[in-house]
Amino acid sequence: MQALILAGGSGTRFWPLSRTARPKQLLALDSERSLLQETVERLLPLVGPESVWISTTRALAPEVRRQLPAVPPEQVVAEPVGRNTAPAIGWSVRAMPEAARQGVVAVLPADHRMADGHAFRQTLAAAAMAAETEDRVMTLGIVPRWPETGYGYLELGEPVGAVHGVRRVRRFVEKPDPERAAGFVASGGYLWNAGIFVFRGATLLAHLARLAPELARGLEAMAGASSPETADGLYAGLPALSIDYAVMEKLDGISTLPLDCGWSDLGSWEALYEVLAADERGNAAHGGETLALDARGNLLVSDPGSPGLIAVLGVSDLVVVRTGDAVLVLPRARSQEVRRLVDELKGRERKELL
Amino acid sequence: MQALILAGGSGTRFWPLSRTARPKQLLALDSERSLLQETVERLLPLVGPESVWISTTRALAPEVRRQLPAVPPEQVVAEPVGRNTAPAIGWSVRAMPEAARQGVVAVLPADHRMADGHAFRQTLAAAAMAAETEDRVMTLGIVPRWPETGYGYLELGEPVGAVHGVRRVRRFVEKPDPERAAGFVASGGYLWNAGIFVFRGATLLAHLARLAPELARGLEAMAGASSPETADGLYAGLPALSIDYAVMEKLDGISTLPLDCGWSDLGSWEALYEVLAADERGNAAHGGETLALDARGNLLVSDPGSPGLIAVLGVSDLVVVRTGDAVLVLPRARSQEVRRLVDELKGRERKELL
Repeated sequence: MQALILAGGSGTRFWPLSRTARPKQLLALDSERSLLQETVERLLPLVGPESVWISTTRALAPEVRRQLPAVPPEQVVAEPVGRNTAPAIGWSVRAMPEAARQGVVAVLPADHRMADGHAFRQTLAAAAMAAETEDRVMTLGIVPRWPETGYGYLELGEPVGAVHGVRRVRRFVEKPDPERAAGFVASGGYLWNAGIFVFRGATLLAHLARLAPELARGLEAMAGASSPETADGLYAGLPALSIDYAVMEKLDGISTLPLDCGWSDLGSWEALYEVLAADERGNAAHGGETLALDARGNLLVSDPGSPGLIAVLGVSDLVVVRTGDAVLVLPRARSQEVRRLVDELKGRERKELL
Repeated sequence: MQALILAGGSGTRFWPLSRTARPKQLLALDSERSLLQETVERLLPLVGPESVWISTTRALAPEVRRQLPAVPPEQVVAEPVGRNTAPAIGWSVRAMPEAARQGVVAVLPADHRMADGHAFRQTLAAAAMAAETEDRVMTLGIVPRWPETGYGYLELGEPVGAVHGVRRVRRFVEKPDPERAAGFVASGGYLWNAGIFVFRGATLLAHLARLAPELARGLEAMAGASSPETADGLYAGLPALSIDYAVMEKLDGISTLPLDCGWSDLGSWEALYEVLAADERGNAAHGGETLALDARGNLLVSDPGSPGLIAVLGVSDLVVVRTGDAVLVLPRARSQEVRRLVDELKGRERKELL
């Protein structure tokens, strides 16, 4: 099995720790290793680094290669420009040797957390078996733990095939309102769509040719391009489609296995707080020395690359983040609003802080 | 007139900006210049730098001389060890040339703020006249603006002498409880004791000889010491008395002039907040770039020597301080409790943060 890890993201939700040149997947948020490094290590022993492929950007590729010395450098595939996930996946699969492409490929986000790696590998192995022996396109759906309105859902259909637990996906559901989300979770018939897919590479390319012919033609043209510059130009012209929209939501036969492994997309400082171990007063720290007196429920994060202390007294439920050049303070409950600060800095053209 | 500025303090109230090696008086807190530099400049044109004396510690003397290049280096008098204000003042006055010592000396703290320098110089000049022409020991008392329980008070007595406004001090009152403080302020008959004194140097030494004979004998022995090392040893043996206790509270004839010049002792982050200009949402910033969204009443302070941003969102009435190696967050109303954090760091033996 090959693992294709999508590591081209550029989110701002962990500003000021995350920056344009150091996005979330390259940060050590919940351990000493980056989320990307953890994603690769989590695959062992099911998939070794020699079978790992990384799709990322030109700007991030050097740091990706530095963080993953065991992954062959040519398997770090750098997009010349960001064109969403369908071109990224299509081009990476197309770049694999014929034998690898005929086998199973697992597509994984680079920036999610899974507390139970063993459960993850078990489910992934079962999905790979269904993909290999029955040529299914599989998506792993997360067993929902609360009525989240920020994720898409997969509606479960009937069991299919010989691999235990595999069920057809009846449909992809966009982010629901709270009432629908509550109904989904109560019913037991829905999973969170986490963007994890398993398929035979050749099968995915065949689906692309049928469902996204313009994209597939562009990929073939790139494969025959006379120079890297020509290929770059062709890539820039590919339609910027998500793999969900271009293929997965249109497939009749897509199937799923439920994944229950302590998954978190670590989508905000609050999400990070929830997965970190807090002390008896609910203060959670990461990355540096802290000192908290009469303080409860705070998340205190330092850039490990810039040693220093965070001291708080008499404050509750705050996020305090310290880097060499910036400090962030906001209530944990307003973690989603970090984007507003980033937008303001963009307005000020403070590029060195972005 | 000579000005003797007491700059040996080592407070922790402005941690993490203030450190053992960089105490409050050497910090730029309310302007681009340090409180010590402002104290010296505020004396102009009444007292020029050639007539300024600084009493400080051995450790701080180099930085004091660096900050005050116009003050003759030998007039920065460095105590070998801290022995409180009476030895510091006594030794500095004893170190002055005979002619200077026969004239008027004003003793001033190095770390207070006075918004109205003109009013300060007018009052100081009047006090100097009373000291010079009537040989009075004067203390300038601050016209109280609220019933502060953290200061000592001077109870006003009858008018004395020929200089307008001079009144006898009936007694020194220790820090009162809230009820007494309210009565003091309502009566109009009390001033805050701010530790500002004006006297003829020789007169002060004569009072010391009478009221603190052990100290006075020690100072004379130092003046006749055969080596600096001998003098240092003698200084270390001086009784560690405050000038208030050793002399001022025991003098029958001490007099005062009320000082109304926007004085603040800048005794805490909250006191600093009160003197800084706040924006329309009550956020006050000093020392670096800030970004505040949906935030009110916060004090945001950066170490100017370590450029960086403080970004806050959705928080109110906090103190946020950023230095190269530390961040402090606490409610403004709990500014006085910074000491608890410093004590904790002492317990951890984190000397580089102290």
